[in-house]
Amino acid sequence: MNNANDFSAYTVSIHYDRRLYRQDIAGSVAHAQMLAKQGIIGEEDAAAIVDGLAIVKQEIESGDFPWDASLEDLHMNIERRLHQLIGPAAGRLHTGRSRNDQIALDMRLYIREVIGEAVAGLRAVQRALLGLARRYQQVVMPGYTHLQRAQPVLFAHHMMAYFEMFQRDIGRLDDCRRRADVLPLGSGALAGVPYPTDREFLAWELGFSSISANSMDAVSDRDFVVEFMAAAALCMMHFSRMSEELILWASGEFGFIRLADEFTTGSSIMPQKRNPDFAELARGKTGRVYGDLMGLLTTLKGLPLTYNRDLQEDKEGFFDTVDTLQTTIAVFAAMLPGLELQTERVESLAGESGMLATDLADYLVGKGVPFREAHGIMRELCRHCDDEGIKLQDLPLDDYRRFSPLFDNGVYGITAMASAAARDNPGGTAPGRVAEALARAEQILEEAGDGA
Amino acid sequence: MNNANDFSAYTVSIHYDRRLYRQDIAGSVAHAQMLAKQGIIGEEDAAAIVDGLAIVKQEIESGDFPWDASLEDLHMNIERRLHQLIGPAAGRLHTGRSRNDQIALDMRLYIREVIGEAVAGLRAVQRALLGLARRYQQVVMPGYTHLQRAQPVLFAHHMMAYFEMFQRDIGRLDDCRRRADVLPLGSGALAGVPYPTDREFLAWELGFSSISANSMDAVSDRDFVVEFMAAAALCMMHFSRMSEELILWASGEFGFIRLADEFTTGSSIMPQKRNPDFAELARGKTGRVYGDLMGLLTTLKGLPLTYNRDLQEDKEGFFDTVDTLQTTIAVFAAMLPGLELQTERVESLAGESGMLATDLADYLVGKGVPFREAHGIMRELCRHCDDEGIKLQDLPLDDYRRFSPLFDNGVYGITAMASAAARDNPGGTAPGRVAEALARAEQILEEAGDGA
Amino acid sequence: MNNANDFSAYTVSIHYDRRLYRQDIAGSVAHAQMLAKQGIIGEEDAAAIVDGLAIVKQEIESGDFPWDASLEDLHMNIERRLHQLIGPAAGRLHTGRSRNDQIALDMRLYIREVIGEAVAGLRAVQRALLGLARRYQQVVMPGYTHLQRAQPVLFAHHMMAYFEMFQRDIGRLDDCRRRADVLPLGSGALAGVPYPTDREFLAWELGFSSISANSMDAVSDRDFVVEFMAAAALCMMHFSRMSEELILWASGEFGFIRLADEFTTGSSIMPQKRNPDFAELARGKTGRVYGDLMGLLTTLKGLPLTYNRDLQEDKEGFFDTVDTLQTTIAVFAAMLPGLELQTERVESLAGESGMLATDLADYLVGKGVPFREAHGIMRELCRHCDDEGIKLQDLPLDDYRRFSPLFDNGVYGITAMASAAARDNPGGTAPGRVAEALARAEQILEEAGDGA
Amino acid sequence: MNNANDFSAYTVSIHYDRRLYRQDIAGSVAHAQMLAKQGIIGEEDAAAIVDGLAIVKQEIESGDFPWDASLEDLHMNIERRLHQLIGPAAGRLHTGRSRNDQIALDMRLYIREVIGEAVAGLRAVQRALLGLARRYQQVVMPGYTHLQRAQPVLFAHHMMAYFEMFQRDIGRLDDCRRRADVLPLGSGALAGVPYPTDREFLAWELGFSSISANSMDAVSDRDFVVEFMAAAALCMMHFSRMSEELILWASGEFGFIRLADEFTTGSSIMPQKRNPDFAELARGKTGRVYGDLMGLLTTLKGLPLTYNRDLQEDKEGFFDTVDTLQTTIAVFAAMLPGLELQTERVESLAGESGMLATDLADYLVGKGVPFREAHGIMRELCRHCDDEGIKLQDLPLDDYRRFSPLFDNGVYGITAMASAAARDNPGGTAPGRVAEALARAEQILEEAGDGA
Repeated sequence: MNNANDFSAYTVSIHYDRRLYRQDIAGSVAHAQMLAKQGIIGEEDAAAIVDGLAIVKQEIESGDFPWDASLEDLHMNIERRLHQLIGPAAGRLHTGRSRNDQIALDMRLYIREVIGEAVAGLRAVQRALLGLARRYQQVVMPGYTHLQRAQPVLFAHHMMAYFEMFQRDIGRLDDCRRRADVLPLGSGALAGVPYPTDREFLAWELGFSSISANSMDAVSDRDFVVEFMAAAALCMMHFSRMSEELILWASGEFGFIRLADEFTTGSSIMPQKRNPDFAELARGKTGRVYGDLMGLLTTLKGLPLTYNRDLQEDKEGFFDTVDTLQTTIAVFAAMLPGLELQTERVESLAGESGMLATDLADYLVGKGVPFREAHGIMRELCRHCDDEGIKLQDLPLDDYRRFSPLFDNGVYGITAMASAAARDNPGGTAPGRVAEALARAEQILEEAGDGA
Repeated sequence: MNNANDFSAYTVSIHYDRRLYRQDIAGSVAHAQMLAKQGIIGEEDAAAIVDGLAIVKQEIESGDFPWDASLEDLHMNIERRLHQLIGPAAGRLHTGRSRNDQIALDMRLYIREVIGEAVAGLRAVQRALLGLARRYQQVVMPGYTHLQRAQPVLFAHHMMAYFEMFQRDIGRLDDCRRRADVLPLGSGALAGVPYPTDREFLAWELGFSSISANSMDAVSDRDFVVEFMAAAALCMMHFSRMSEELILWASGEFGFIRLADEFTTGSSIMPQKRNPDFAELARGKTGRVYGDLMGLLTTLKGLPLTYNRDLQEDKEGFFDTVDTLQTTIAVFAAMLPGLELQTERVESLAGESGMLATDLADYLVGKGVPFREAHGIMRELCRHCDDEGIKLQDLPLDDYRRFSPLFDNGVYGITAMASAAARDNPGGTAPGRVAEALARAEQILEEAGDGA
Repeated sequence: MNNANDFSAYTVSIHYDRRLYRQDIAGSVAHAQMLAKQGIIGEEDAAAIVDGLAIVKQEIESGDFPWDASLEDLHMNIERRLHQLIGPAAGRLHTGRSRNDQIALDMRLYIREVIGEAVAGLRAVQRALLGLARRYQQVVMPGYTHLQRAQPVLFAHHMMAYFEMFQRDIGRLDDCRRRADVLPLGSGALAGVPYPTDREFLAWELGFSSISANSMDAVSDRDFVVEFMAAAALCMMHFSRMSEELILWASGEFGFIRLADEFTTGSSIMPQKRNPDFAELARGKTGRVYGDLMGLLTTLKGLPLTYNRDLQEDKEGFFDTVDTLQTTIAVFAAMLPGLELQTERVESLAGESGMLATDLADYLVGKGVPFREAHGIMRELCRHCDDEGIKLQDLPLDDYRRFSPLFDNGVYGITAMASAAARDNPGGTAPGRVAEALARAEQILEEAGDGA
Repeated sequence: MNNANDFSAYTVSIHYDRRLYRQDIAGSVAHAQMLAKQGIIGEEDAAAIVDGLAIVKQEIESGDFPWDASLEDLHMNIERRLHQLIGPAAGRLHTGRSRNDQIALDMRLYIREVIGEAVAGLRAVQRALLGLARRYQQVVMPGYTHLQRAQPVLFAHHMMAYFEMFQRDIGRLDDCRRRADVLPLGSGALAGVPYPTDREFLAWELGFSSISANSMDAVSDRDFVVEFMAAAALCMMHFSRMSEELILWASGEFGFIRLADEFTTGSSIMPQKRNPDFAELARGKTGRVYGDLMGLLTTLKGLPLTYNRDLQEDKEGFFDTVDTLQTTIAVFAAMLPGLELQTERVESLAGESGMLATDLADYLVGKGVPFREAHGIMRELCRHCDDEGIKLQDLPLDDYRRFSPLFDNGVYGITAMASAAARDNPGGTAPGRVAEALARAEQILEEAGDGA
């Protein structure tokens, strides 16, 4: 325990930063080419570096690369191997570069890709939601507030509420990608580099829209990682809400849906169980993504400029968030199409009398009663039915009239679908409005193409 | 304790949601006008409502409004008062509206204003940073990594690193404002409303760019609040980093700056103290903003659609974040201009020999030594100086040559400013590059106008 | 904006630390008496101070105290007023004391009281749970895993699960109280005080079990606040779980309970609603308590010793947690007794065939079938019933025997209560075991007396 | 993507729960023995199970165990292998047990061990602190508040402040261990088990102090995991504070300490650097532990009873916290002994005049000046010295007397050590008090033995 070697695990990052090998190599190739173009290193050295890195990449992908934890991180592993492969020229690759701007580059290249995949995945989820909405387009179900049945809504309308949430998630991810799309390379350790580098060339080669404006900021900035994690936290929050609903709906008490067998599991004890494990896990995994976000925010709090070793802690939580988000997206994209709505059950509940109380109040308003008064009448009427154990639709007209003389036979024409159809505003649940929303969603997805 | 009246405090929100009175009234005025325009209520009723609300607003602002906690929230307080003022017409205001879409509207109107103020404040902070950079534009100071002196940088360059951070914060706030800029009114309780409302008219009246596309989403969406809080958390993280540096720099050991008297405090015990309390508080308050973010994310986790009373908990933490952010911004905008840099102290440290080790390594590279080898030579040389207690600049040339025969008298020409000047890339700390950065920053601020 | 006076709000704490006035005065009285006992100040001065503080306390409690925000905090407000009341002797109170150890004292005195109240409140909640368990002691209901009906349990058993959770919460609060029960006064600003004070006397006077062992630690230690907030977070987590269940149970789909009118609210739109707002708010408020915890942990992260102004941020989040926890406890203690269990509904569901599948598997085990095999048989049998739309209890014996020849007429004797009664281990749901648990709980409450 | 097999990774836990293999096997061995003792299974079956599990354990430890991710978790992997080894008897092991109580058991067994190791490690850290305190027992250094030099303290006193923090951490871990020390086995899936098990026997065999009182609580309780994580968060907070101080002290500006080479690293760019990476990483890793805590709290929020699959998410964050805490403890236990205090530097700063201002104020108090007045005089005097650029100790007596005629030659006898010696209360920094504290600490460590 007197030897720091025992504690190497505390500083080593190679077991997780190796994930960035493609980004790291791409950055090094561009850097070598730029150095040669600027005459900072010779063309032959650059060529040797580029060729050597191609071999390194191949070795990594074929599993032949000699990873060495004693070399601490990805950069040193690749550098050592490159040195073995091409000799002293390998050392020239590090002219005008530091690990500080190198890792900042790798992270930005990586997050660009990650966001592309997340957005494509969310498009698939949106397509699945749209598919469900189309399949059950005319089905009326109870809409809830406070988990109490409130007003009838179209199932398609409910699905499209989630479509909107993921639409915003995509917007946030795109904004994050835009802010991450800045080349940090060329910032050196913190102050810039004493070589006539061409940063615009690097940006062009690596596909960045712009270059960082301040070297001290560039090596200590992890805003884009936090911003991604915050966007991921919101997205997981949406999945947790949908999960909660799927779990509720799959319960015996609700009985609204049946999930595909592949997305339920049995019990080691109870043979009859069909547990919605994937939805439960998605709900549970929301916690870890929140925690990852909180972890990085805490790590960054109160750090002086510029690079501090604390910043190495920007990766594991971030990678965990990436993996959790991407797999959750994939699970939902695959699980949703297999969802079977129990249409009889939901339509039956949607037509229960309590569900139509608001419409009856509106009916009174239509006859000139101020809304608050109509609402009060219906509250009394509902309480009466409740106490008597009678349903609104079974209540004789005379009884209705004891609460208001304005009631007439029209009360019996108020149905769940009529209720939904009455909410005929943009954004409302009337079938025509929902059809418009579906058409608009299809257009969004079409314009998005393959989702990227 | 057997009476629920004792627990009203648990559900009452009037002590904090009254902050939204202007937004609530503006929304009601627009709603009344729309109802009249559509023929849903009479013109006279609409006029009475608008006039009544003007009185309500005046009463609130003059302190004469009869707030009543037993009415729970802002909406009910205003409604009751309106009823007292104009009679039954007040009840018609609630046609085609629910508290669910009403509060969603109020929050969106409010956050739009809040973001405008935050952005204007951050512009003022940027101006202050730019002012400091201009005032001390040619001063060289030590740049740090790992809180170890690393390479000389211009003080102006250091200030501009923070300029960049706040520039990104402004971008995030603007993106959040764009996503919040959507009218939810017309969504009713959850399903839309059974009246021929004109939501586009409402959006136009209230200055929204678009209307919400799904009523169920609209009443349960608090994404924009979370997004604001995440942006605020990042912004406070930046202030916490600057605070840490101000605290370090104001310490006797660093001795880099003197803060204005108004922003330091003495001690009740120790007469000599000049404590940087404002910076400490800003660093400390970062925690509460993180906590507010985590609180709302947690509250939203796993909620089924649509409105649940849990959502009432979206306000206090949010308001706390708003207040903390705005006052922190104001404090820094006022504190920074009074900062006095101890130029002799920082220039002296910037010129210490250890600071120039990288440049000496680069000097060897310039003579054909591969970078890693040059770095190794300098590491040995630094260790030698360390052991002997001698500074690099006082080391005789013969001693230099014991480490590499390539050293010559040029080593004594390597100074802090020469080191900085050598980092002459876009984003680097060379005086010319910093001058370019300042000019660009001035242009940004000019284009931003008064900051909104 | 050029004047720091504008920013006093940033440093002022009087609007929230005034809550500690009783603790602060009690500490000052003890300090004055100690100073006199030790001959550090005169007896007359001490008497004047004690008398003056009595007046201050009275003024605060009667609302006559001239609070002055320009004096920043509670200590300075009291000191100034004391000076007005008794003249220069007031200054002698501060001999051998600093605001650093004074506020540490106040917080510890306060948290001791708070914990006492929380424990008493949790005892009341436990009594309410026990009352419900007694009232419905023989009622069988469905027990759930994965929100799928799993095995029948006694309602009383379910209630006692919560009893156990709160029992652990009480244990954690007691442990926290023990660690907070240490006198910090006498630590001075950070190093101790240069007067012959008697700290043991102070501890005895103020009811502390011991004195702090290290002055630097004593003025910078906020562990006890974090520990309280972590205990509160766990306790709120328990309430959030119970809330979730109450909300589910109060839904139309479950229909398990009816909450007292005082603890439900109606809707401004939907007359039929009986929303479980208190439970929803408790679930939602869990977020803020988590956030408060995270906020203080973040604030403390990375602070050098000893006192830093960041520590002023230890109060608002803590007070918010205290208030949230205490009111939530009070709400549940009052709400639970009015809960009406819909016994017919829950007993009916508990007897559904799927619920008894495990018992049928166990029945096969009793006939020599290995458990995993029996489980497989029942899974097939359940699937068969599912596909055929037939209930297990309605399945003819011949059909049973197609799955296993070991089935006989005994299968029809397996009922919900029989299932529960079979789980006859300590901690199990058999009526006898539950009766034992209730008796043990009564003993715990009896020994706890009034709960403190 | 249409096949759920693709998503097995979402539910599989074997890559992390295999860590619990020893606990799982120990629990199974005890369970088998209990089943045989009770006559629930045959003695031969029990013997076969026990022997088979011994082989399984050996296979796992030798790396020969055929882990199979398609079997999802540890339990199923062991069960399958046992079945291969001993045939159908393996199935009987699951009589009277479910995965729900089995995993609860494993976690409790594991956390007991983890706490034992953490406490032993913290004892080693305390020993290291005590060693430093003894080595530099008479060295005076500046004590800080607000990172401004405040009053002289003994370095040993400063070290003992951390000793106290870790002492509390140990107390919290012990309390957590006590609450985790409860056997959950026998709770079945949620309701108990229909076999005449002997839970007390199990508790005795597995070394538990008591058995769980309620089966529904037992399978859904993760309080002990959260409590451990909260204790770990506090402990990491302490390490983050010490890290901040080590980083400050190791900076060129402070120059208080030199860390052993093994615990600093150089720079790939800057040859002169000696970066305190281990301390920075410890400070940074504090974030992940906070995040893990927040993650689990969030996951648990709002879950209905009893077991939900969300609970599977109790492990990875917990294991991450365990690993982070244990390695951080080990790093500090090894790093601290190699810390070299730069005694000349710290003693020189401790003797600077500003440091003695409080003592000069106390000196005036000793001559009858009320404290607040003395404090005011010294504030003026310090400002005068500041403005004139003169040190207090170089100020002529005549100048002193311009501020108060009570000053005499005694002012020049006030030194750093005299200042420290004057703080001669229990807990104060006077050398005698510190010596007492060291003796007490030695006794604590002696009584703790090897730290467990």
